[in-house]
Amino acid sequence: MSGTLYGIGVGPGAPDLITLRAYRLLTAAPVIAWPAPEGGDSFARSIVAGCIRADHVEIPIRVPMRTERFPAAEIYDRAAGEIAEHLDAGRDVAVLCEGDPFFYGSFMYLFQRLSGRYPFEIVPGVSSVMAGGAAIARPLAARNEVFSVIPAPLDDDRIEAQLHACEGAAIIKVGRHFGRIRALLGKLGLTGQCCYAERLTLETQKLVPLDAMTDDDAAPYFSMILVYRGGEGWSLPAPKR
Amino acid sequence: MSGTLYGIGVGPGAPDLITLRAYRLLTAAPVIAWPAPEGGDSFARSIVAGCIRADHVEIPIRVPMRTERFPAAEIYDRAAGEIAEHLDAGRDVAVLCEGDPFFYGSFMYLFQRLSGRYPFEIVPGVSSVMAGGAAIARPLAARNEVFSVIPAPLDDDRIEAQLHACEGAAIIKVGRHFGRIRALLGKLGLTGQCCYAERLTLETQKLVPLDAMTDDDAAPYFSMILVYRGGEGWSLPAPKR
Repeated sequence: MSGTLYGIGVGPGAPDLITLRAYRLLTAAPVIAWPAPEGGDSFARSIVAGCIRADHVEIPIRVPMRTERFPAAEIYDRAAGEIAEHLDAGRDVAVLCEGDPFFYGSFMYLFQRLSGRYPFEIVPGVSSVMAGGAAIARPLAARNEVFSVIPAPLDDDRIEAQLHACEGAAIIKVGRHFGRIRALLGKLGLTGQCCYAERLTLETQKLVPLDAMTDDDAAPYFSMILVYRGGEGWSLPAPKR
Repeated sequence: MSGTLYGIGVGPGAPDLITLRAYRLLTAAPVIAWPAPEGGDSFARSIVAGCIRADHVEIPIRVPMRTERFPAAEIYDRAAGEIAEHLDAGRDVAVLCEGDPFFYGSFMYLFQRLSGRYPFEIVPGVSSVMAGGAAIARPLAARNEVFSVIPAPLDDDRIEAQLHACEGAAIIKVGRHFGRIRALLGKLGLTGQCCYAERLTLETQKLVPLDAMTDDDAAPYFSMILVYRGGEGWSLPAPKR
């Protein structure tokens, strides 16, 4: 009997925003694999650090964040091989995924290599996009509004067309594209309807109206800009706290 | 000291897909409010039924599902009034929200009426959209793909334009629009790239390739069609299970 491959969404960052199922499976799995940048800490691991015991076997999957030339095939080949050894030996392996496993995550690269050979289960997680709605305390989308998730690395024309076509949007992976995206949103007259967010749900969370930011502000890779185009959901008065 | 209003995402349906935070707050709150159809059971309440005790005060918010003429202002006025009485008396009130509170939910109508007067906290939840990705075991979106959530009640032209503009999409609230949406996807040549889903994560989950369905199939309001337009995330080989 081979072990089971679990793709586990660990949510946006706060340790108590993992699901009961994720908690149970992480506690039970003897092997935990997690993504990390080269030579840095794993964000996914930090979220569930409280669940990890000394007797857990841990498999770091270190991927350079510097370029966008994903997938780094040989890195995922090697990690899949290491995971497969545990699965072959009958040990379940839980792969930690920031947010949700199949929503802009790197879990697909491991899943692609292993799912044809081993039983698997995917545990959906709270996406940072939903954490964004909770943080700004406004609906991301309501009733018959269209909501789009738009990666910032896309070119301006594509992003502009997308923004025109939806009522609400999350522009994700802002990072080094911040200045360009901010300029584009300004050109479109949307700056006043945008909110910049990073490290959502963490104590270090940053949540700033876009018009209060300058091009000098540095944005990490995992940052987003929430855009509200005046759809019904967004027209609520700003709540007092 | 007034009580706190909690908007609590209870996830897509499986009781163990609520977050640790939702579980803790539901257990601690003396008052729990939940939406339900007129004369029917509350889906949100059923998800967390295991957390509800006899000493919990429960506030049903019964809204007719028959029409789309939301918001039913007088219903939400009355529910907000009832909740406000508890908050004024210093009792916390947890409002149950299917999926995520601010992602196409009705919580906004209560929030709009109460958030200016009372402290609040929003607990994001696992959206049924992410549960869809886990169920079909394929990425909803990857790398620089655009993902859109498209309500089925929109007219065909709008939906067609949206589908052309994204790599992945979830058409939600399919319900009585099933035949029309299926015909539209057929016209666009997308039927073979679509999966129909209802009651995601429940034991009664239904997950069917769209081309295996007929117009005679009835779809409940909370059903969705996941569309994959051949983006990189969707080009994975179908996994064996």
